Amino acid sequence: MSGIAADDITPWLPPEDLDRVRRQVPMLYVDLLPVRTDESGTVTQVGLLLRMAQDNLSRALVSGRVLYHESIRQAMLRHLEKDLGPLCLPKLPTSPQPFTIGEYFPTPGSGAAYDPRQHAVSLAYVVEVEGDCQPQQDALDFAWFTPAAAQAPEVIDQLVDGHATLLRRGLAHAGVDL
Amino acid sequence: MSGIAADDITPWLPPEDLDRVRRQVPMLYVDLLPVRTDESGTVTQVGLLLRMAQDNLSRALVSGRVLYHESIRQAMLRHLEKDLGPLCLPKLPTSPQPFTIGEYFPTPGSGAAYDPRQHAVSLAYVVEVEGDCQPQQDALDFAWFTPAAAQAPEVIDQLVDGHATLLRRGLAHAGVDL
Amino acid sequence: MSGIAADDITPWLPPEDLDRVRRQVPMLYVDLLPVRTDESGTVTQVGLLLRMAQDNLSRALVSGRVLYHESIRQAMLRHLEKDLGPLCLPKLPTSPQPFTIGEYFPTPGSGAAYDPRQHAVSLAYVVEVEGDCQPQQDALDFAWFTPAAAQAPEVIDQLVDGHATLLRRGLAHAGVDL
Amino acid sequence: MSGIAADDITPWLPPEDLDRVRRQVPMLYVDLLPVRTDESGTVTQVGLLLRMAQDNLSRALVSGRVLYHESIRQAMLRHLEKDLGPLCLPKLPTSPQPFTIGEYFPTPGSGAAYDPRQHAVSLAYVVEVEGDCQPQQDALDFAWFTPAAAQAPEVIDQLVDGHATLLRRGLAHAGVDL
Repeated sequence: MSGIAADDITPWLPPEDLDRVRRQVPMLYVDLLPVRTDESGTVTQVGLLLRMAQDNLSRALVSGRVLYHESIRQAMLRHLEKDLGPLCLPKLPTSPQPFTIGEYFPTPGSGAAYDPRQHAVSLAYVVEVEGDCQPQQDALDFAWFTPAAAQAPEVIDQLVDGHATLLRRGLAHAGVDL
Repeated sequence: MSGIAADDITPWLPPEDLDRVRRQVPMLYVDLLPVRTDESGTVTQVGLLLRMAQDNLSRALVSGRVLYHESIRQAMLRHLEKDLGPLCLPKLPTSPQPFTIGEYFPTPGSGAAYDPRQHAVSLAYVVEVEGDCQPQQDALDFAWFTPAAAQAPEVIDQLVDGHATLLRRGLAHAGVDL
Repeated sequence: MSGIAADDITPWLPPEDLDRVRRQVPMLYVDLLPVRTDESGTVTQVGLLLRMAQDNLSRALVSGRVLYHESIRQAMLRHLEKDLGPLCLPKLPTSPQPFTIGEYFPTPGSGAAYDPRQHAVSLAYVVEVEGDCQPQQDALDFAWFTPAAAQAPEVIDQLVDGHATLLRRGLAHAGVDL
Repeated sequence: MSGIAADDITPWLPPEDLDRVRRQVPMLYVDLLPVRTDESGTVTQVGLLLRMAQDNLSRALVSGRVLYHESIRQAMLRHLEKDLGPLCLPKLPTSPQPFTIGEYFPTPGSGAAYDPRQHAVSLAYVVEVEGDCQPQQDALDFAWFTPAAAQAPEVIDQLVDGHATLLRRGLAHAGVDL
């Protein structure tokens, strides 16, 4: 079974293996709130992705899995560039301390966010993005909102499960909760 | 879907499955620094486990895996009671924000901590423990140290890889780094 | 320099000196959000003071000035016992890191909270309170609210300027923002 | 005494007033640890000021008083530009949450840091500085150190009272404590 050696070092998993692992252990994610700031560091805008899923429009933070043998900082950079394009120029935070933890359970109504695919735990960070952001792959749009506009019901209601909570906590942490 | 259903909901994994998963995705852990405080909340003592591993004595924080479908708070309680006994009476922190993140790689010399078994990421918390602590299972001892004593070279050198860093960061976060 | 020496070491200021100082430098405060938690550390209730001020009912966090030569932890204990009574049994946080900073300016409309008396900056902490809380002095009542009830408009609207923001940030930090 | 109106709005205090106020209330400071980071946000260098005081060389973080009617963010910008020059290009943190609090007492041996002039409390932040830093005013030098070099005994021993603790806590918070 020579494939084991390759399995050992590649971060990539065949879909059937990933499906299986997702029912065996919690999956580690990063959830990233992209922001623009003014010269005093105050958050002036937050960025949200827009996607079409099963005939519904949904909005989301930049979010993705941490791969085997990938550091948290590498995962942050990879997902920001994957979702916002190679020119987004993120300034990763100096501290590895997330502002909160996201918890997703495959069981609806458990009190945590719902993710039918898996049990996932995310490290959530506010990340300043200085460059040009272009939606990639499956995203229809990436739009900047003022903190107030991002908390309008029509935006909040479009966010995928769990991300409204992370958005609110991220803005509260950044000191712009109103 | 008889067997599968059980797989879906049990947090327990057969050893061979766990070994495989550990080479496929990062494993999520909690690393907990048990402390005693005075009435003003100042940390006066930190607790470390002592174990015998391959003829060597080693010290460690309370540490363990988060299971499938287990919340972070449940995992914290379970590992504290598993390692310190059912009478340890932990006061879990009110915030889910860890003071730092631990990263362990199966590759020595990668800059992160070394864990030959797996790639692991831990959420690290300082936890006040108010009750009676007794070493359980494989632990030889559980001992309280003043912050200064815990940072003595003879203690630091016995800590398993990565835990000296977490101990220092936890004490720094608690404001007792000297 | 007889009289001056006393001034040098007493934390108490005559009202006319306090009025003057309040127009000369920012005043340092602590703003404390008292909470009850369940055994897993999850915040289940937050406590708010009710006062009568100029014919209006107003609600507030536990809040007060840090005195000359008083430590932050001493100021926290003093204000909790002053407002909630000597049996309130607070568990001060192990870390001196506040969850946010409150800023109050004597100029309405400056973007910060408004305090006509002074420029003040507060260190804001969530504090678990385990004992019996009784309103003291000028308070009419001290009441516990679920996180959801505390964020109801009729409660939020009664909060003194700046405290609604601190309440929201404190709950967000504690992971119970909904 | 028409000057009172001016006193009310100017942040500047005559030296005799400042001396008096310093014995009446705690003075609010910011303590800032300037850092350089690599593209992944990891701190690679920390900056320290070198000054001559009473025939002794001493090193320090960027540190200074918050003025009346000055916001925390304004005070951070002002002190960074005052000490590092107008081209230092600081990136202020997105969150107002300091990584720790510094406490300075005018009484030696009180357990806190010693400042013979006053009781002071500082909000401590790690601040990334992207531009060109030149020592200003009374500083002899501003030098960048690797995190390891900054913690060498000969550097630590030159730091003004309290700043070694803040340096260690800042590096621990940034995840580069070794």
